[in-house]
Amino acid sequence: MRPTDRGVRIDAPRLRARLDDLAEISPIPGGGSCRLALTDEDRAGRDVVRSWMIDLGLRVQVDAIGNIFGTWDCAPGAPVMTGSHIDTVRTGGRYDGNYGVLAGLEVIETLMTAGMTPSRPLSVAVFTNEEGARFQPDMLGSLAYVGGVSLEAALDIRAIDGARLGDELTRIGYDGPAPVPGPAPHAFIELHIEQGPLLEAEGVTIGAVDGVQGISWQEVTITGQSNHAGTTPMRLRHDPAYVAASIAVFLRDLATEMGGNQVCTVGKIDLAPNLINVVPATATVTLDVRNTDEELLQIAERRVSDFLDDVAAREGVKIERRRLARFEPVVFDPELVDRVAKIAGAHGHDVKRMPSGAGHDAQMLARVCPSAMIFVPSHLGISHNAAEHTDDEDLVAGANVLLDIMWELAQREPNEESS
Amino acid sequence: MRPTDRGVRIDAPRLRARLDDLAEISPIPGGGSCRLALTDEDRAGRDVVRSWMIDLGLRVQVDAIGNIFGTWDCAPGAPVMTGSHIDTVRTGGRYDGNYGVLAGLEVIETLMTAGMTPSRPLSVAVFTNEEGARFQPDMLGSLAYVGGVSLEAALDIRAIDGARLGDELTRIGYDGPAPVPGPAPHAFIELHIEQGPLLEAEGVTIGAVDGVQGISWQEVTITGQSNHAGTTPMRLRHDPAYVAASIAVFLRDLATEMGGNQVCTVGKIDLAPNLINVVPATATVTLDVRNTDEELLQIAERRVSDFLDDVAAREGVKIERRRLARFEPVVFDPELVDRVAKIAGAHGHDVKRMPSGAGHDAQMLARVCPSAMIFVPSHLGISHNAAEHTDDEDLVAGANVLLDIMWELAQREPNEESS
Repeated sequence: MRPTDRGVRIDAPRLRARLDDLAEISPIPGGGSCRLALTDEDRAGRDVVRSWMIDLGLRVQVDAIGNIFGTWDCAPGAPVMTGSHIDTVRTGGRYDGNYGVLAGLEVIETLMTAGMTPSRPLSVAVFTNEEGARFQPDMLGSLAYVGGVSLEAALDIRAIDGARLGDELTRIGYDGPAPVPGPAPHAFIELHIEQGPLLEAEGVTIGAVDGVQGISWQEVTITGQSNHAGTTPMRLRHDPAYVAASIAVFLRDLATEMGGNQVCTVGKIDLAPNLINVVPATATVTLDVRNTDEELLQIAERRVSDFLDDVAAREGVKIERRRLARFEPVVFDPELVDRVAKIAGAHGHDVKRMPSGAGHDAQMLARVCPSAMIFVPSHLGISHNAAEHTDDEDLVAGANVLLDIMWELAQREPNEESS
Repeated sequence: MRPTDRGVRIDAPRLRARLDDLAEISPIPGGGSCRLALTDEDRAGRDVVRSWMIDLGLRVQVDAIGNIFGTWDCAPGAPVMTGSHIDTVRTGGRYDGNYGVLAGLEVIETLMTAGMTPSRPLSVAVFTNEEGARFQPDMLGSLAYVGGVSLEAALDIRAIDGARLGDELTRIGYDGPAPVPGPAPHAFIELHIEQGPLLEAEGVTIGAVDGVQGISWQEVTITGQSNHAGTTPMRLRHDPAYVAASIAVFLRDLATEMGGNQVCTVGKIDLAPNLINVVPATATVTLDVRNTDEELLQIAERRVSDFLDDVAAREGVKIERRRLARFEPVVFDPELVDRVAKIAGAHGHDVKRMPSGAGHDAQMLARVCPSAMIFVPSHLGISHNAAEHTDDEDLVAGANVLLDIMWELAQREPNEESS
């Protein structure tokens, strides 16, 4: 029997209180926080979460890349792990990451209070530098944990402010002794706000996340001929602003035509000199192209590339491409996704199987163990913003699903050896 | 007989030397100058030009808005006037404005040296704040001269640096006693570099400028919904960047479809927050729409306005319009334009009748007397830039056309009274 079947449920005010307490560390106007990875603010957040782990009697380990693990050693074997991150972007909301970590603590405290002891250890992870707002790439702590980047390379990464990651880890006292890469958990399940508008728009409470979109990022710099806007006939123009605009319109048309999970965004356009009466000399635009299907993502990339060649030739401008990021789509463990959906349904919630549009630590853990995610609604899809909001009711619903799935994952088959 | 028919021609090295000397006042790297209106640098330029006028024995008058007139009182009556400006944008070239003023002095010195005395006075004007780079609006000195703005209003204008125009005029000693508005000249003819690529591209030396394009400037602010680029499906987006791009593409299509002298430019796009993975919250774009025909310009404006309504409704964004400038097209005196073309042809030059895409002081003088302009080629159309360049040969060709047309305009009909 699952905990909720026995009437055991997470303590909503306690979860709320921890979320609020953590948000008070380096708060920003409007209710969010600014805790860029490995700053003093991040340290303050880590110290608080670590103290809560210790208060719960968990065994706290810090590894060589600064990931923190609070483990309830209630049974032998590899733990069922949950967790997320507590670093934020500069204008961070109070739920992104924090919710997944603190709901994990809440699950453990709920089981402890109810006197229910799982058959495997439960562990809550706080991964280093998930946001990538200070150090690139993002999801670095979980990537290093699964061996996707060498520790040496990770420690040598430079921040946007010039600081070396390894030095900052040491400075804030989070260069721990646990080895990297670390041992594979039995399973990994991450609870997170959706950071998109779908669940709210469709009136669904729980997202059973079946994968993460592949991401193709590039920056395109267009060099044309700067000229007077009044005196240069249209036929003699080599206008980077027009080319940049054409690219943005093409991306919209492409995503609409491809449909499905294809999304394309031009979120950044910089013209120079950027004056009303001057045809610009250069334009720089960023192209964000995502799909859950690698083959479709490659088709989208080819069509974008062909369009760039075509529009550059037509307008007589030079185009330079710089790849900024490329991740293949991730597919989560189908059985685990099924379990999430089943539990959420048993709780009386509408459930939507959906991909994640954003990257999350769970996609790294998926390399070493069965992994999946649980999403709860984000009001208007707003995230990375102090206005980020999820209703208490939804936060509690997600945490109760996490409670049951972690309990279930920690169960052993009747004939299973302890290992 | 015209001066050139008698073998009288302007002194090319002397013109070149004055251009170079003036460019040495507040020079910038690459060969241009920075003399924002009514700064110490502008004063230094004015002092030099005034000293050259005095050296030529001209009567120098400064009016209440700081316009400088150097007049050769060789005959009674209203003068045939030429001139332009010597203020520059921050990154000014060495020909824009300066060439028209110094070629005017050169015409007078050439006639004096040749012992040819015109039948009307000749006058060279240096108009205040043509560029509008420090004080808005541009072409202010000539506008005030023809009574298009009251002296009081003009003196009260604030600079981008906060200074009051009247105070700056007094500070640099150019608040003169001559009245504003001033007396109408007999005719006005302005020699200027094209600041566009047409003459060079078509291999033509002289432009007989028959008017100035009408200008419609507006700023459009688009407010949508900022969202995560990965998690927000296309159908749920209200994307200001897409709308901005659509507007830029529409303007290009509109100008191409309308043809003729229609030009449209989006030279400035500002997205917020302007990040690769965020659908922006807002976009601000400027729309520069010009035509030589007022009726066509109004048609273009209506079509732009309809498109803005349409795209805003389709994308679900809010659009705010702010009119930044609106000038009707100016038509120069057809007979005077004919004369310019005829003289240039007689000099053996290819001539192109063309509108000016940029605004010039001549369009203000056209309100009070027969006016026209002469253009010479600008290399690649580059202007407002240290790289602004016109070949000496073309500078000389333009000045010789100015010489003949000023002489011709100063002739009196055999039966005409002196007045």
